[in-house]
This record gives sequence, C-alpha cells and structure tokens, in this order.
Amino acid sequence: MTYCLALRLHEGLVFLADTRTNAGVDNVSSYRKLHLIQPTPERVFVIESAGSLATTQEVLDRIKRDLGADSNESLATVNHLFEAALYLGRLSREVAAQHREALSEVGADGTATFILGGQVGVEPPDILLVYPEGNYIRASDERPFLQIGESKYGKFMLEMAIQARVDIDTATSIALGSMMSTTRANLSVGPPYDGCVYLNDSFGPIEFRMESDSPLLEKLRDAWERQMHAAVGEIKRISQDDPTIDILVIGQGRRR
Amino acid sequence: MTYCLALRLHEGLVFLADTRTNAGVDNVSSYRKLHLIQPTPERVFVIESAGSLATTQEVLDRIKRDLGADSNESLATVNHLFEAALYLGRLSREVAAQHREALSEVGADGTATFILGGQVGVEPPDILLVYPEGNYIRASDERPFLQIGESKYGKFMLEMAIQARVDIDTATSIALGSMMSTTRANLSVGPPYDGCVYLNDSFGPIEFRMESDSPLLEKLRDAWERQMHAAVGEIKRISQDDPTIDILVIGQGRRR
Repeated sequence: MTYCLALRLHEGLVFLADTRTNAGVDNVSSYRKLHLIQPTPERVFVIESAGSLATTQEVLDRIKRDLGADSNESLATVNHLFEAALYLGRLSREVAAQHREALSEVGADGTATFILGGQVGVEPPDILLVYPEGNYIRASDERPFLQIGESKYGKFMLEMAIQARVDIDTATSIALGSMMSTTRANLSVGPPYDGCVYLNDSFGPIEFRMESDSPLLEKLRDAWERQMHAAVGEIKRISQDDPTIDILVIGQGRRR
Repeated sequence: MTYCLALRLHEGLVFLADTRTNAGVDNVSSYRKLHLIQPTPERVFVIESAGSLATTQEVLDRIKRDLGADSNESLATVNHLFEAALYLGRLSREVAAQHREALSEVGADGTATFILGGQVGVEPPDILLVYPEGNYIRASDERPFLQIGESKYGKFMLEMAIQARVDIDTATSIALGSMMSTTRANLSVGPPYDGCVYLNDSFGPIEFRMESDSPLLEKLRDAWERQMHAAVGEIKRISQDDPTIDILVIGQGRRR
C-alpha cells in the first residue's frame, strides 16, 4: 500500500508521500513515491504514485526519456497542467497494457494511480488525480485535496486543515499528522516521508524528507496526544453532566 | 455498507450500530443491525450484522425458530459464548450457501459478518467477531474492540477510548463520535444509531436509539470541533515556532 496526499491552499501546494513498498508482507522496502520534475524554469511538476512500483518506475523513465529526446510530447511541451495529466495517463496506460498479459497469468495487476500537481507558466497552480485508465479529475473547490492509496485513516485531518483555512506551514504539519495516523493504522504505509511545498508563482518548489525520529514529528505527535486527551476529558464531562444517556436508560431500569 | 462496533471495557460492554442499508445508491433504507436476544434470564446476546441484509434477516429468523422449537442447538442451549459464535457461524454459512448459486448468477454475494457479544452465566462477558466462513475471533486484550463494515474512518477514536481507560459512559460517547466521523465520510453509513450498554453480571442490557438531531450528539459534535480547533491552534504554534521546517527549506532558498 501507499499513502500520498496533495493540498491546494490559498498560498500554494503541499505534497506528502510515504516511502514503504511491499510485495507481500515478507518483502518490504523503501522507495521514493514523490518526484519533482522541473523541465524548464517556468514549469514545475510534482508526481506522486500509488500502485505497481514497476509501472510507476517505467512511467518515470519514459517521462525522462521523452524530455531528453526532445519528443513531440513531453512535460517540456505541454501547455497546460491538464495536458500533462493526459500525457502521464497515456504513459501509465501504455506501460500497464504492455505487461498486462504476463502479469495476469500470475494474478497480478500492473496499474498505477498518480497525483500530478504544479504550475505551468501563468496558469494557477493545481493538483490533479490521474486514474489508471488515463483520465483525470481536479481537486474540488469545496475539498481542495487529493489522496491516493490508503486514504481513509487520515482523511479527517485534511478536512480539518481545509476547514480551518490554515497557512501553508500549519497545513504541512497537519498533513504530517494525517500521514502519522495512517502509518499507525496500516503497516504497509511507513516513513521516511517525502514532502514538497510549492508557493504560488515561485517556480521554486521546496522538497524535504522526514525520518520517523524527526524532532518536529515528535512534537506534533505529543501535541496531538495532548489535545486528544483534552477531547476525551470534555466528552467525559458531557457524558457525566448530560442527562440524555441516563434518560435513555432510566426507563429500562439501569442501575448506576 | 454498515458500521457496527463493540467495546469490551472494565465495567462492561458497549455496542453501537448504524441503520442504513442500500442496494445501489438509488435504493436506500433503514433497518436495525443491532439485535438483543435474552433467551433465559442468565444469558444475554447482542448480535450486530454487516453484509447481506437478506442473509442476516434469515439468520435471525432461524435463531428465533430454533429458540421456539426447543431445538437441540440454540442460543438457549449453548454453554459458552464461543459456542454461540460457532452456532451463529453455522447458520450464516448455511443461509449463504443456500442462496449462493442464484446470487452468483447476478454477481451478488450473500455473505454476512457478525459481532456477537454478551454473557452466558458466570463466564466473563466478551465480544467475538464471526466471519462469513463460520469461524470466530475474540477482541484482543491490547485492543479490546471489534468493528465490522466501514471500520477505517472511526478506528482512531476507539483506540483513544481504550488508551485513555475511560468509564463506560465516556466510552459510549466516544463510540458515538466514532460513528459520527464514519457517517460524515461514508454516505452508506447513517443514523439513527442503535446502541446497547451491558454492565458486567447485570443481565440487564440497556438498549437505546439515537436520532441524528439528538441533543447529546449535537453537544458531542460541538466538543469535537472545539477540541479539533484547539489542536490546529497548537500545531500552528509548533509550526511557526519550530525551526525544523525552516531549516529544511533554507538551504533551498525558500522566501518567507
């Protein structure tokens, strides 16, 4: 499994990806799933991948080959982010199709899903999700984030960040929280975490990597635990003060 | 989909189930998924179900028929909770097998998964998960809760309740929080919510139903939101005060 996310905020974009890969539980390894490609100064692409590691690697190799070969279509030639998404989708489909027959013989699936984000020229930065079938969707205005892989455990934190309209640093920290809760719940997601922060119109994406023993992660973990305990405390007061549960049960003779 | 949970606490057991059922998105209805059966005064069974509604209803009908017919094996005859789990598992397999051929023709699956909890005589109360294959597992000592259906969104709250060693009322409120976050994330889980609280050795289980406009649910929702905002505030302070993110990006020329 994998967990990758991307947030589109007022100030810019935040990307975060885990690095754990596995072929069964007895073959666990660590690979980058977040890739930054800046083919010309005024275009920035961040690609996050989930699914077949072999397919994502061949797709990235083809992207680089197309860039090196001055191909008719490449990340250097597309004029819009959505064209980059369609290009990525085409490569992904081609690679998966090429290996489909051999993989299906062993019951394996060679498809991959991508998040593509960044900025092309004067267009506003954006984040798109590219399906294995080659089509794409943008993040919505109401929920301007995308997730691929194991998305359920960490979703509420991203919703919180969006609702609270936080700055990009806080959003990055909340994204790390989302990653940590997913890691805790699903063994197939794990550190180190690769991140990228992109400020609008900067064309200077900032990459970082965070190990599991990072002091910031530890502080964030502590803060979460403290706040969760406070939440439990308040819920405890509500449960003890509020007669609702009692009322519900009095009729049925609950002894307290 | 469905979301049912059960917690085994020091004082007793807590059960909670949603009521939404659907056959496609255009056929949504509401059915009880939590069933209390007390065949004799010194035995209490709570059954929660996920999966095929038809199968769960027929299983419950057979349970009642066996009780009425003084059958050789029924919830009145089993001597241990695990025997009740095996009995339930056998009925579930039989019902699913009976309809398998017809269902498979339309690509449907008639299996069901159950949580069975309660107390039989002087044995300590417990909660068990019964698989569609008819075997069962108990909740572990480290994580004494079980979930069936859409379990991922609401898991962290149950872990929190267990870690904080809360009383049974607080645990019930936290379970309601777990249910509400699942409902918010998955349309196929919805109110009203059926609950049951069982105090050890009481043989007097307390059932309740909570509608979505319940004042307690509203209070709990408010408390959660307030605490989540406090958490965001603290994470914001950490992100602004802590130089880690800055240090990560200074080398790459981030303008702040």
